[in-house]
Amino acid sequence: MEYSRPVSNNSVKITDSFWKEKIDLIKKEVIPYQWNALNDRIDGAEPSYCMRNYRLACEILNKRKHGEKTPVFPTEKWHYSPKEDNENSFFGWVFQDSDLTKWIEAVGYSLQNHPDKELEALADGAIEVLCSSQAENGYINSFYTINNPDKAFSNLRDHHELYCFGHLAEGAVSYYNATGKDKLLKSVCRFADLICEKFGENGMAGYGGHEIAEMALVKLYETTGNDRYLNAARLMIDRRGTRPYYFDVERNENSGDKINYVYNQAHIPVREQKEAVGHAVRAVYLYSGMADVARHTNDTKLFNACKTLFDNITNKKMYITGGIGSTKDGEAFTFDYDLPNDLAYAESCASIGLVFFARRMLQVDFDSKYAAVMERCLCNNILAGMSEDGKSFFYVNPLEVNPIACREDSRKNHVKPVRQKWFDCACCPPNIARIISDYGEYCFTETNSSLFINLYQSSEFTTDKADIEIISDYFKSGEVKFKIKTKRPFTLALRIPEWSNKYTFSINYSFVKKGYAYFDIPCNRELTANFCPEIRIIKCNPNVRENIGKVAVARGAFIYCLEEKDNGKNLHLLRLSHKPEFKIEGKFITANGYREQNIENALYYEYTPSEEEPVRLKFIPYFKWANRGENEMSVYIRY
Amino acid sequence: MEYSRPVSNNSVKITDSFWKEKIDLIKKEVIPYQWNALNDRIDGAEPSYCMRNYRLACEILNKRKHGEKTPVFPTEKWHYSPKEDNENSFFGWVFQDSDLTKWIEAVGYSLQNHPDKELEALADGAIEVLCSSQAENGYINSFYTINNPDKAFSNLRDHHELYCFGHLAEGAVSYYNATGKDKLLKSVCRFADLICEKFGENGMAGYGGHEIAEMALVKLYETTGNDRYLNAARLMIDRRGTRPYYFDVERNENSGDKINYVYNQAHIPVREQKEAVGHAVRAVYLYSGMADVARHTNDTKLFNACKTLFDNITNKKMYITGGIGSTKDGEAFTFDYDLPNDLAYAESCASIGLVFFARRMLQVDFDSKYAAVMERCLCNNILAGMSEDGKSFFYVNPLEVNPIACREDSRKNHVKPVRQKWFDCACCPPNIARIISDYGEYCFTETNSSLFINLYQSSEFTTDKADIEIISDYFKSGEVKFKIKTKRPFTLALRIPEWSNKYTFSINYSFVKKGYAYFDIPCNRELTANFCPEIRIIKCNPNVRENIGKVAVARGAFIYCLEEKDNGKNLHLLRLSHKPEFKIEGKFITANGYREQNIENALYYEYTPSEEEPVRLKFIPYFKWANRGENEMSVYIRY
Repeated sequence: MEYSRPVSNNSVKITDSFWKEKIDLIKKEVIPYQWNALNDRIDGAEPSYCMRNYRLACEILNKRKHGEKTPVFPTEKWHYSPKEDNENSFFGWVFQDSDLTKWIEAVGYSLQNHPDKELEALADGAIEVLCSSQAENGYINSFYTINNPDKAFSNLRDHHELYCFGHLAEGAVSYYNATGKDKLLKSVCRFADLICEKFGENGMAGYGGHEIAEMALVKLYETTGNDRYLNAARLMIDRRGTRPYYFDVERNENSGDKINYVYNQAHIPVREQKEAVGHAVRAVYLYSGMADVARHTNDTKLFNACKTLFDNITNKKMYITGGIGSTKDGEAFTFDYDLPNDLAYAESCASIGLVFFARRMLQVDFDSKYAAVMERCLCNNILAGMSEDGKSFFYVNPLEVNPIACREDSRKNHVKPVRQKWFDCACCPPNIARIISDYGEYCFTETNSSLFINLYQSSEFTTDKADIEIISDYFKSGEVKFKIKTKRPFTLALRIPEWSNKYTFSINYSFVKKGYAYFDIPCNRELTANFCPEIRIIKCNPNVRENIGKVAVARGAFIYCLEEKDNGKNLHLLRLSHKPEFKIEGKFITANGYREQNIENALYYEYTPSEEEPVRLKFIPYFKWANRGENEMSVYIRY
Repeated sequence: MEYSRPVSNNSVKITDSFWKEKIDLIKKEVIPYQWNALNDRIDGAEPSYCMRNYRLACEILNKRKHGEKTPVFPTEKWHYSPKEDNENSFFGWVFQDSDLTKWIEAVGYSLQNHPDKELEALADGAIEVLCSSQAENGYINSFYTINNPDKAFSNLRDHHELYCFGHLAEGAVSYYNATGKDKLLKSVCRFADLICEKFGENGMAGYGGHEIAEMALVKLYETTGNDRYLNAARLMIDRRGTRPYYFDVERNENSGDKINYVYNQAHIPVREQKEAVGHAVRAVYLYSGMADVARHTNDTKLFNACKTLFDNITNKKMYITGGIGSTKDGEAFTFDYDLPNDLAYAESCASIGLVFFARRMLQVDFDSKYAAVMERCLCNNILAGMSEDGKSFFYVNPLEVNPIACREDSRKNHVKPVRQKWFDCACCPPNIARIISDYGEYCFTETNSSLFINLYQSSEFTTDKADIEIISDYFKSGEVKFKIKTKRPFTLALRIPEWSNKYTFSINYSFVKKGYAYFDIPCNRELTANFCPEIRIIKCNPNVRENIGKVAVARGAFIYCLEEKDNGKNLHLLRLSHKPEFKIEGKFITANGYREQNIENALYYEYTPSEEEPVRLKFIPYFKWANRGENEMSVYIRY
């Protein structure tokens, strides 16, 4: 079977005004801000202690090297602080190390986009510290190194050691790809070797409570060619959810079914999992690793499990914005079609993980549905996670917000009506930084014979088949021009967006398969496609209880929403007319609608037909919401 | 100003087939079951330890009387069990004593309805034990008596001592009224005297964390004529919410605003409270006591605060079924118009407390709106709290239930799709028992000149004005006949139900004021009223976000709902026709409607008009729901 590989972010130059602006924002705002955060230099924010921990780990290792005895601190908690713990203890969350490695990963991608000696020097310095925190046996983790090295690998369920390893490996690969510098990569490989030894065929049958090591080990395998890493990833996947549960074994407990480990996707073996469950970020990180391992090991059964899980998510558990995880309780998936608008969790990181998963599915199954999900997530839930100035972020991405409820209803206090500067548990901003900086990696995939265009934006890139320039007006007129300078004949596969009802191509395609139009490109060619991004009225499957009788408005890749700023208070009183007469006005879509008049004081009264005032509704792209202060928002409107 | 008093349950004989059946059910099923529960004789249920605690308290007092030293146990927790605590400790919730006193109260009312020597003997025995658990200084509370008498009155905020006193006093008054036996009443007065001493003008400025002592003290005052009790109630009300907070004082803390005590309605002085807040049961118990004290002390400012709070609840925070408390978090009120159907708390006890409050308001302000709320609560939220066989109960009374969500969505796991046998915290079943047994107390109120008929049911009663027989078909044809044998001329005031659009009286009224029609009754009269309980389509105020575009169906006092048993799964797919052609079929109302066909597999798709199948909808009174096994239910339907 032929699999595709992404065209590396390294070889792609994004020239698109829309996406370049976002990528530049990450470089200009997010990466420097994050660096200050890692170094506890943000006024008014809880210190991260991230670099402080690494430096302390270096000191301690140095002392140990010189035979000095170092104190031991507790390792039972998830979070440590100067208020509660010894001044020489590790501080912050047990997974705080990953803040640096996610930053390094984003820096790597950013350097691929914009070489920057100063930033590279800064990263080199941080990497120097990081590598010095590596123990002689290869182990890297400042929490256990500082607090008690003897406890390493003793609580895989809760303590994110393999999670930190995963982010470390992803950071190292990104930085190596960007700079060719292999210092960090070599350190990580030594750590990976230790993990392979500990968790090899005859070692401990462990796997991480928060998945990511699986896909990170595959990245190391892809980067180094050492199939030991692939094998370690496969073992973690094969062992997950088998009995006795490793998470019980490591605590010498026999929980039986007292803890079912659904939260960690470790309740049953992964090949038997049919439904996406538990913590949504953990889930899609696992599924990404599963798809990676399936691809590299030709494991059809494993890939079929991935297909089932992907379809379960995208057909039954995904918000229209690409958000996943319907409940704040465990930041988790709930049951099929349970997609409450105002209680949504839809964490930025979970949607990012879904893009990871979708890209990996697309590499095996050349079906545009995977690319459609990437586009849905990127253009809606993920972009909404960051403010237009790149200075504040959403962790939770609801589809309906009433600011009063966020403040006064404890069931909704996870929903913030405005983006926050930074977070105590700072997973989302760095994750947004790393995916947007790496946007190029998701646009194109290729096999030896074919090149797939998955996302459309002005860009230039080069492969062994051709040098290609794309001039895109995809979001506005829908026109996308391809200037192709062939190096050899190949097949160009253009994704037909699932939302495109009429599309045109300037040359004839050979055939359409799974939502891609295939063109033979024997020599230099110019090709123009137009996908006609019309304004659409979208309905949810009637099984989505909350949205019965309601619709959303969309155009092209963008889902739109109503904001109080443009439509007044009490958005629920609005209704879309059956003759909407849609009009595009700048960034807005306007439409005819009605506002139910509130003329009654009584709480309950005998039905009389509503008095409605005709209004002109104003919709804004969802990703642009909450950039003008606190206000009500709603994606859905009665129709 | 002239205030009204209720015609005592003692003088009322309910002959109504509907209400008598409920009252008999309490006697036949609930009271005996409760007695077994109090004595830990329910198989499969967690023991209550209630009688065990009282007996242990008696033993300990006896030992102390004989100079024996008894051990001391912790008093910091809210709950004690043989698994965690010493075998000689108090067991159960710190408020477990009230289970017996609520039972005694229900027994008292029940004996008023049906004399029963055997039940009376049982109660006398229990009262014997209870009275023996009284300390020499008058103190009664098995928790502190057993665990540490020195800690008495040291944690009014959390430990329900004044709450237990309140239920004790209410039980004593009920039992005294029923039997004339004053043993328990005398004991309680001694305890009340101790409380008056401790919390008198110059004593500790305390009040209960869970209100009820206020209205209980007023009952003692009304029963004994001792105005010391009225004064103690007034003091508790006057002191509540003043600074420094007593709850801070008692813990020697200066919390300032760290704890705002909104949960306990102790955040600001009660006369300044404009909005119903915090734990809903606590709130309406307090407001009831406030209305009592206002009535007896002619305190207009206090009564106006009650009016504001009553209006806030009933105009902005009450479910159509009479349920109050929109959130499980703190079993509490949230903000105006926040009335989610599926997340509702709407505790049975809170709706019962609202009836207490409404009756007291009605005694001062002869406005039928108070009686309308009593009827709404009794006929809907409260009756729904008990199964038709009297053997199982709802704590939470939602307006929409999807059993899958109750099981799989942690945000809804407080909502049970079927009634439970008993509860660990068994407040609702005894509360339902006591209000239904005392139903007669809510039907009629009188001043020296006027007799108010608030609720309509077949019944006979006697006052100094007349002997009256009511033959009621109020729920069905709407006809109510009054046979009045006068003892002296008086004014009869008949409540015009707020739902009655056309009503007729066989004789002319003098005038209508605040929803009551006033008739001069100079001598024996027969009067027939008909209130024509038509089927109504009810709309919520558009500020109730969740119910925009939806309606409920009602007839007379009853709110109806749809059940899956009668209408199939996925009730949200149903829509009521604009030509409903309602028909009454036995207990059901049927109507024309439509069911949206679910023919799409996709989660999101471009809008096409719904395909709808015409169906005949079947509505059942809300109070009858969930008597046929687990199923979906919804009060509201799209229209």
